[in-house]
Amino acid sequence: MKSRVRICMVGAGRVGKNHSRAITRHVPDGEIVALVDPMESVRNETAREFGIENQYDSLEKALEEVEFDAVVITTPTPTHLPLTELSAEHGKQVFLEKPMALNLQECDQIMAVVDKNGVLLQIGFMRRFDPEFVMAAERIEGGEIGEPMMIKSRTHGPGLPPPWARDLRTSNGMLAEVNSHDWDTVRWLMGSNYQRVYTEVANFKGPANNVDTPNFYDNVLVNMKFESGGLGLISGVCPCGYGYDARVEVIGEKGIMQIGSLEGQNVVVCTDRDHGLVTPIVRTWPQRFAWAYIYELEHFIQCVQTETAPRASGTDGRWAVAGVLAGTKSFLEERPVYLKEILV
Amino acid sequence: MKSRVRICMVGAGRVGKNHSRAITRHVPDGEIVALVDPMESVRNETAREFGIENQYDSLEKALEEVEFDAVVITTPTPTHLPLTELSAEHGKQVFLEKPMALNLQECDQIMAVVDKNGVLLQIGFMRRFDPEFVMAAERIEGGEIGEPMMIKSRTHGPGLPPPWARDLRTSNGMLAEVNSHDWDTVRWLMGSNYQRVYTEVANFKGPANNVDTPNFYDNVLVNMKFESGGLGLISGVCPCGYGYDARVEVIGEKGIMQIGSLEGQNVVVCTDRDHGLVTPIVRTWPQRFAWAYIYELEHFIQCVQTETAPRASGTDGRWAVAGVLAGTKSFLEERPVYLKEILV
Amino acid sequence: MKSRVRICMVGAGRVGKNHSRAITRHVPDGEIVALVDPMESVRNETAREFGIENQYDSLEKALEEVEFDAVVITTPTPTHLPLTELSAEHGKQVFLEKPMALNLQECDQIMAVVDKNGVLLQIGFMRRFDPEFVMAAERIEGGEIGEPMMIKSRTHGPGLPPPWARDLRTSNGMLAEVNSHDWDTVRWLMGSNYQRVYTEVANFKGPANNVDTPNFYDNVLVNMKFESGGLGLISGVCPCGYGYDARVEVIGEKGIMQIGSLEGQNVVVCTDRDHGLVTPIVRTWPQRFAWAYIYELEHFIQCVQTETAPRASGTDGRWAVAGVLAGTKSFLEERPVYLKEILV
Amino acid sequence: MKSRVRICMVGAGRVGKNHSRAITRHVPDGEIVALVDPMESVRNETAREFGIENQYDSLEKALEEVEFDAVVITTPTPTHLPLTELSAEHGKQVFLEKPMALNLQECDQIMAVVDKNGVLLQIGFMRRFDPEFVMAAERIEGGEIGEPMMIKSRTHGPGLPPPWARDLRTSNGMLAEVNSHDWDTVRWLMGSNYQRVYTEVANFKGPANNVDTPNFYDNVLVNMKFESGGLGLISGVCPCGYGYDARVEVIGEKGIMQIGSLEGQNVVVCTDRDHGLVTPIVRTWPQRFAWAYIYELEHFIQCVQTETAPRASGTDGRWAVAGVLAGTKSFLEERPVYLKEILV
Repeated sequence: MKSRVRICMVGAGRVGKNHSRAITRHVPDGEIVALVDPMESVRNETAREFGIENQYDSLEKALEEVEFDAVVITTPTPTHLPLTELSAEHGKQVFLEKPMALNLQECDQIMAVVDKNGVLLQIGFMRRFDPEFVMAAERIEGGEIGEPMMIKSRTHGPGLPPPWARDLRTSNGMLAEVNSHDWDTVRWLMGSNYQRVYTEVANFKGPANNVDTPNFYDNVLVNMKFESGGLGLISGVCPCGYGYDARVEVIGEKGIMQIGSLEGQNVVVCTDRDHGLVTPIVRTWPQRFAWAYIYELEHFIQCVQTETAPRASGTDGRWAVAGVLAGTKSFLEERPVYLKEILV
Repeated sequence: MKSRVRICMVGAGRVGKNHSRAITRHVPDGEIVALVDPMESVRNETAREFGIENQYDSLEKALEEVEFDAVVITTPTPTHLPLTELSAEHGKQVFLEKPMALNLQECDQIMAVVDKNGVLLQIGFMRRFDPEFVMAAERIEGGEIGEPMMIKSRTHGPGLPPPWARDLRTSNGMLAEVNSHDWDTVRWLMGSNYQRVYTEVANFKGPANNVDTPNFYDNVLVNMKFESGGLGLISGVCPCGYGYDARVEVIGEKGIMQIGSLEGQNVVVCTDRDHGLVTPIVRTWPQRFAWAYIYELEHFIQCVQTETAPRASGTDGRWAVAGVLAGTKSFLEERPVYLKEILV
Repeated sequence: MKSRVRICMVGAGRVGKNHSRAITRHVPDGEIVALVDPMESVRNETAREFGIENQYDSLEKALEEVEFDAVVITTPTPTHLPLTELSAEHGKQVFLEKPMALNLQECDQIMAVVDKNGVLLQIGFMRRFDPEFVMAAERIEGGEIGEPMMIKSRTHGPGLPPPWARDLRTSNGMLAEVNSHDWDTVRWLMGSNYQRVYTEVANFKGPANNVDTPNFYDNVLVNMKFESGGLGLISGVCPCGYGYDARVEVIGEKGIMQIGSLEGQNVVVCTDRDHGLVTPIVRTWPQRFAWAYIYELEHFIQCVQTETAPRASGTDGRWAVAGVLAGTKSFLEERPVYLKEILV
Repeated sequence: MKSRVRICMVGAGRVGKNHSRAITRHVPDGEIVALVDPMESVRNETAREFGIENQYDSLEKALEEVEFDAVVITTPTPTHLPLTELSAEHGKQVFLEKPMALNLQECDQIMAVVDKNGVLLQIGFMRRFDPEFVMAAERIEGGEIGEPMMIKSRTHGPGLPPPWARDLRTSNGMLAEVNSHDWDTVRWLMGSNYQRVYTEVANFKGPANNVDTPNFYDNVLVNMKFESGGLGLISGVCPCGYGYDARVEVIGEKGIMQIGSLEGQNVVVCTDRDHGLVTPIVRTWPQRFAWAYIYELEHFIQCVQTETAPRASGTDGRWAVAGVLAGTKSFLEERPVYLKEILV
């Protein structure tokens, strides 16, 4: 029997909590032996909720004081490179949340350091482990809808992102922090890289939310052309208020495929015929992708146990970052941008 | 070109209005030339709404004063026999609403008088003309789901029926006035007659609605066995409040078929993720069966024009009455009742 | 009682048939008294199917030989201006299919000639009469989902358009012949004009269909910004094969609204659990918009009877043409195009 | 931190495998330390799949040779009483699959022996832990749809049950082995006990499956009246072929609630407009109730850890057995049967 993989969870915020819950409650082969977060109150709350004994305010301290096999990094994007470097240099296997990094140089450095130290790297593209997305990808790959001609992928999230994640000076904004998954999904399901993108953005709720960050947007549509000749669309709305919406549609030469639904639970009620039938909507990403989070962490743990390369690689993470950079450049310069301008 | 069929609409109430609307607005080959109803205010309102010039308080007067080809009878059940006799004896073609009559003797008299006078008779089983029911029947007949083993048919209606229609002394209650369609549907789709029925009833809302009629019920479940060996269920709830619910499910040896939906319109909205997605429900029977009413009246008019026997015959109407009588006897005597007890 | 409106149907092809069926079968206040089409076999077939006695190979002849009140023009786009001029100059009311014309000059001439002759003009934007679209528009207008931020409208049609309709030299291609409805819908539902558009196109099935027309495309995505600041998307796929897909989604500041469905009929069957549940899809536009066609023609006929201006005006038609021209210019020049470049 | 609960899995068949998977893969607080099954090949396969080291052909041997805290009993119904007695007498906590037993005497003996030995007893009514059923129950309890008037609960399963489970001489047939869940569900959601039941059965596929067991049936409809005055329906079809169908509908004085869906996965495809949209159906009970199985076993394990009484009690199990006995008596004697005839 394989031994359990000891994990140091780096980041105790929303994503850190989500991953801690998945591992603690539903992935017996993983064991969280340490929790790292500079913010004490957040750290305490997460540690208490999931019974994690060892807490540290830095990864350095955790590395000194406790033994573990792998890190799960869920901290803000600007920290991804230094935390990965530190982990890799200590021989720890790395699970790294999306977006991989702020730019392609950082992506390259991340890939270089994990290669050099011979550790594994998995990017947190959990949709690649969602049973519906996986089934869809297999069926497209199997030719069921023919050559993909057009894809539409959306991520609309209910709440306003934190300040650092909506400011182009500290992150790459919504296209990166919310829509990273879409950049990965469209490439995956189309089986082709994007070649050219054009982006329109809008800012509807910023003023009411007292957001005065330059270039803030809460609505985005990215139109794209793939190397295959296919067309793509990414749409983002955040905060959208109405729920968490991650549906995808693919049109192939032979037919249409729709992935996902807005319906969050099959309990449908009508108590007023003037109001209508009411169905719970998907409210949050932990709800929508509950199995996907369990399966991506199972996968990472199994890869560590069996020393095999994980799916959702650094290359996938790097392409998503390239898309984000092209998409952002497009709306700033009000013109279509070629990926070759970015991938220099 | 065939000449338009001149119709005398007998009954200006809810069903009379519905049929007047269907003919006036969407069936050019029919022309309502007279409206009969003893209640002046109801008659005036319907006549005004559909531009019907000639109004009478009795069918006798209409027969004296205006020429027409056919009657559409939508009056209460106890009047069905005398009105049909009068019409048939004057050579008028007869469209007669369900339930056909109060008992099998009346059904037999109705069939005898139309036969004797050589006029057509169509019973108002509009579900036999609904595009979804028609398609379902054809696919079952074509063997798609194999030999039907089990059927469940429901009619749940939003409002309390009028006093005469919920009193076993003046009608056969909900099983007749609301569920007549189900009795016809299960026989049609199963391709077999019912052999034995068992009925449970409940009275939940009577007291709050000041209904003190003996044996009143507002919920009913009828369990039945068909001559084919198949099983059936009819469910009735009236008033159910939540909408108009006329869904059917058939299980065959090879599979399942579901007919109809609660969704009344494809406009789905969510403005509050704690509340959920809201879809309009089917609110009323004129909404649910809008096309069915148009098509059954088109069919009747074409049968008159071409002198061919309509679908939804007197025999179908009689079987539905027999089911109602067996179902009622069952709950009154608290035992399963065989159709052969009724069909003596 | 209002007298029936006598109609000369100009064009006996697919749309002419569809409208003839709607009027003949379901709009008693309209009467088709003449059918015009230069192609004899097509004309004969349509005339026979709907019992139209008078047939002509030109509108001129029809004007000479038969009396009528209005024309319904369903011929190819390049004929719209001359046929409208001829009709208006003879005092005939004009129902004109979309797209209104090939360019804005023609639109202006059409509006001028109907104004000058005091006749009515309705453009065939039947979605403005579809019960679901109408309800959606009213609910958006009523503020239910707040200020609209983003709209996505699609028309994917099953078959390859005829040669003239897919060639930019004789029409404005798919964006005009298929997606005209979307241009009108997005403007209507957003309550704002588009300001800037960017278009990507793809040609997947042209070669297999032996289409070698320059600039042919069978997939299109148009990204747009509205004057209101909102964002929009139009998607077109033709031939898509899988059905007729005309769904719309609107995201407002307060929520989401989805209009339409792929499900064509509520008869759901499963006979093989390895295959799954099978639901009929919307197959064709006459099926999807059956009520919309009836209602738009009823509306036109009532406007003629009451001498009131129809909804779906020349101005609406002109804006759709402007969008098409901007969208086409965008993909030809590979850049975003402002409407002000077109509306000079 | 609570210590892990050591479990002896008794029964290595389909249900034993399902529960072993749930515990091993997704319930870290449980540990399967022994597997008991008299059939060696079945036992070996299950043990290998879930890495269970200790295997025994009897519970007696397991009790002698390995230490554990609890048993999970998934063997055929006739073994439930002796296995529970043996476990309880050795102080083991008991998770017992449905149906609880063959008759009420056995149920009483089971409840007596666990009481006497102070061990816990949980019956395998996993629907009480399914997120949708739980939410539905809470909302009904909260009054959302008013007083429940009518419930319809179905379990239609894809395959033919094993010989012992379809023979009234060795089990109570489909009503017990397949529909036990429905008996529990209707009582739970109606908040009332059934008072009277009437059953119709049919045998459609027996001959083709070479089943010549007396009184075999593969279709069943049970009509029932509750103490509250409400009405109920249980329907069973097995083998139904088309999938696993466990939907429930409740009509309350204020409205309707539907629980569950036939749709097994949100990946909808259409590649042929003449065929239609295809959606995966729920294929099996492990798929439909994946979370319910995890949660019921988590619940049992937490009850063991905290020494609290589990939900899904012996009393619930006993009522389901009483329903089965009344329902069976009804179709054998062709009459409605009162529960008071059974509960003597």
